[in-house]
Amino acid sequence: MSAPDYGHAFTLWRDQAPEWHAYTHHPFVEGLRSGNLPRANFLHYLRQDYIFLIHFTRAWALAAAKGETLAEIQAASATVQALAHVEMPLHVQICAQAGMDAAALEASEEAPANLAYTRYVLESGYSGDFLDLMAALAPCVLGYGEIGARLQGSGGVYADWINTYAGDDYQGLCRDVGALIGSALVHRLGPGWASLPRARHLSARFATATRLEVGFWQMGLDGP
Amino acid sequence: MSAPDYGHAFTLWRDQAPEWHAYTHHPFVEGLRSGNLPRANFLHYLRQDYIFLIHFTRAWALAAAKGETLAEIQAASATVQALAHVEMPLHVQICAQAGMDAAALEASEEAPANLAYTRYVLESGYSGDFLDLMAALAPCVLGYGEIGARLQGSGGVYADWINTYAGDDYQGLCRDVGALIGSALVHRLGPGWASLPRARHLSARFATATRLEVGFWQMGLDGP
Amino acid sequence: MSAPDYGHAFTLWRDQAPEWHAYTHHPFVEGLRSGNLPRANFLHYLRQDYIFLIHFTRAWALAAAKGETLAEIQAASATVQALAHVEMPLHVQICAQAGMDAAALEASEEAPANLAYTRYVLESGYSGDFLDLMAALAPCVLGYGEIGARLQGSGGVYADWINTYAGDDYQGLCRDVGALIGSALVHRLGPGWASLPRARHLSARFATATRLEVGFWQMGLDGP
Amino acid sequence: MSAPDYGHAFTLWRDQAPEWHAYTHHPFVEGLRSGNLPRANFLHYLRQDYIFLIHFTRAWALAAAKGETLAEIQAASATVQALAHVEMPLHVQICAQAGMDAAALEASEEAPANLAYTRYVLESGYSGDFLDLMAALAPCVLGYGEIGARLQGSGGVYADWINTYAGDDYQGLCRDVGALIGSALVHRLGPGWASLPRARHLSARFATATRLEVGFWQMGLDGP
Repeated sequence: MSAPDYGHAFTLWRDQAPEWHAYTHHPFVEGLRSGNLPRANFLHYLRQDYIFLIHFTRAWALAAAKGETLAEIQAASATVQALAHVEMPLHVQICAQAGMDAAALEASEEAPANLAYTRYVLESGYSGDFLDLMAALAPCVLGYGEIGARLQGSGGVYADWINTYAGDDYQGLCRDVGALIGSALVHRLGPGWASLPRARHLSARFATATRLEVGFWQMGLDGP
Repeated sequence: MSAPDYGHAFTLWRDQAPEWHAYTHHPFVEGLRSGNLPRANFLHYLRQDYIFLIHFTRAWALAAAKGETLAEIQAASATVQALAHVEMPLHVQICAQAGMDAAALEASEEAPANLAYTRYVLESGYSGDFLDLMAALAPCVLGYGEIGARLQGSGGVYADWINTYAGDDYQGLCRDVGALIGSALVHRLGPGWASLPRARHLSARFATATRLEVGFWQMGLDGP
Repeated sequence: MSAPDYGHAFTLWRDQAPEWHAYTHHPFVEGLRSGNLPRANFLHYLRQDYIFLIHFTRAWALAAAKGETLAEIQAASATVQALAHVEMPLHVQICAQAGMDAAALEASEEAPANLAYTRYVLESGYSGDFLDLMAALAPCVLGYGEIGARLQGSGGVYADWINTYAGDDYQGLCRDVGALIGSALVHRLGPGWASLPRARHLSARFATATRLEVGFWQMGLDGP
Repeated sequence: MSAPDYGHAFTLWRDQAPEWHAYTHHPFVEGLRSGNLPRANFLHYLRQDYIFLIHFTRAWALAAAKGETLAEIQAASATVQALAHVEMPLHVQICAQAGMDAAALEASEEAPANLAYTRYVLESGYSGDFLDLMAALAPCVLGYGEIGARLQGSGGVYADWINTYAGDDYQGLCRDVGALIGSALVHRLGPGWASLPRARHLSARFATATRLEVGFWQMGLDGP
């Protein structure tokens, strides 16, 4: 099965990220697919993912703050809205069903792999511009889309998780984010952006964020 | 008529801002009330307000990025959502009815008074923390609420504008923002925050932003 | 006399900034040249310039924070060092000689034209990247160099001020900043940067900052 | 031997950081003391420390940008100057003597523990205010001072490294930074700052940064 098409920039950056395969085919991901991932590891991942989502929402809010056109601001703010008012409450609910209430989530200590990834993304946005932030956000948003698409139909105890990312809503979001990145690149750098030095810097940001995604799965696999 | 109650911090800061009356009773405001404000000045204001709203939306997005609790992030992101997906399209529509299409709006040169105010707010947020940003945002959000409440029922050609800010939706927003500021202060500085040096700094930010609001009305009154 | 050469980007941006002549030949500048500028206006300017320099130093520090190479960080930090530990103490001393002690300087209220300019520069840097910050900083640094070079030898009561900016030290700084901007552009955008959309955005930042410089001189001319 | 006195805030925060002892007595540190740390691990550490110092310099520059008084801006910029124009060139020279030239340093891939720590510090500063940044910077600056003071006179192959941090210059810097933190706290929060909620948040930042310092030593110990 070929990878889903989320636009030209994603295709380029993914092909240039040495650890893309290590990320999208990580043993943690394979454990979700086969259903063999121990429950304790999944819960540890969920708990850290709650903290992750808070910082990820903040990073998308920063993207809205750094947008240069009304369209960019609106696209980023729609994602913030979805994360803060749909994704986060849903996540809290899933954790509650798994026996972790809000207090337990709040009391979690943030794992180093979580700190590394979220702060790298946020700092990319603060120190750089909208494009730097997009390049650092892309591996998470679009990588989960690619993983979801690949794992679709695997069944098993993690089918709900898989179906969230394989579903039409999330796949549509991925295409929207891919389109946002594409138009943001052309708006600033023109249609020939891929041949500029800037393209190498952005690709390096994407690759570093991908590397930190591998660390995040590994943190889940290592367990609490 | 007494001023509306948007919380303790607002009451304090308003009382300490030397130009609060000059802002809320500016001749431009009185012109809206009496209906004597020339149409050309109102249109000039609307056109600049379009640019203002873009940066104001960005500033609220920055607040979401800088929130320290899920509740702060959610409250700020709800405001971003309302601004980017309700207020801005409405504003574009009002301008269109007044004969200014999107291209005309985009082509407007940002007035110095607009640059001064919006960049002061954003820079307060970037250089300071969530509280600095709230103190700089408050004069606009809550001042318009106070003006709307005072002008309610004035009638005249600017009744639509007045009713937007006098209405329940906007007054509710003001109380929500007042509550957000209050809880953010207590969360960081405790219940005795008003006696700390920090309170003076925040009050000074509020006063400077108020001064820049006076300049914004004056820009409208001076006309295109 | 031809304008001094501070590099390709400056030449381009200056030629595209509609108010460059209004800035560099402002009546305040002509008053410095002829010596006819009233002392009270010069002191008002000095007092505001003290506040300006604080924020300008902060903006250069932000540039050091946003540099992507050791050379960029070192160049920006050398400017911070010169501003914070040479320029500022010198300015305090000049003001003291003119009868304004440190307490008087600290007590000055920042003029709207000052707020507009400094916050525009800082916000350009925070919301954009190193290049956005450079484009917003350039009109001040390099414009003063051009003005100094043009007014050199005018004599009169403001000869000290003129000689500061006409002198070798300051002219060398201008060439260094011009070279920093040039290499930062090529490092990110390649040798053909001037034809990219980004070049228009940066030129627009330079033009807006130039417009705010005109406002700063005008504030001096309008007096306290 | 008692720990050196770098001020009240440091004493409080250190006592509240669960991993302070794990940081200051890490096996890597003990290896420096005994001289038993393998050379390859020390070189790996030096190589990563080069990248660390670049981001650390940027973080201090951000502190200068976020300072609220001339004294804060000057103190932070003096540190930037020392880091960018003394410490970094010295580090490059030490690495060269150890056989790693500038190109080798530039080509190093930044380790996750390095990314985690440096981006956590920078993001603390960008998202919070000057105090948040100080709390995140303190464990490195002051912890190295405490380690240097404790290891002084150990002799062995790492005596040069130890003497750098045990020496008067560095110990003086630690006292200066401690004083800067103390006055910044009082300036904003008053003399009773330690009883405010804010004090807990700052202490938590210090503790998280300490935890990431442990990870940095461990990265050195794990080797290339």
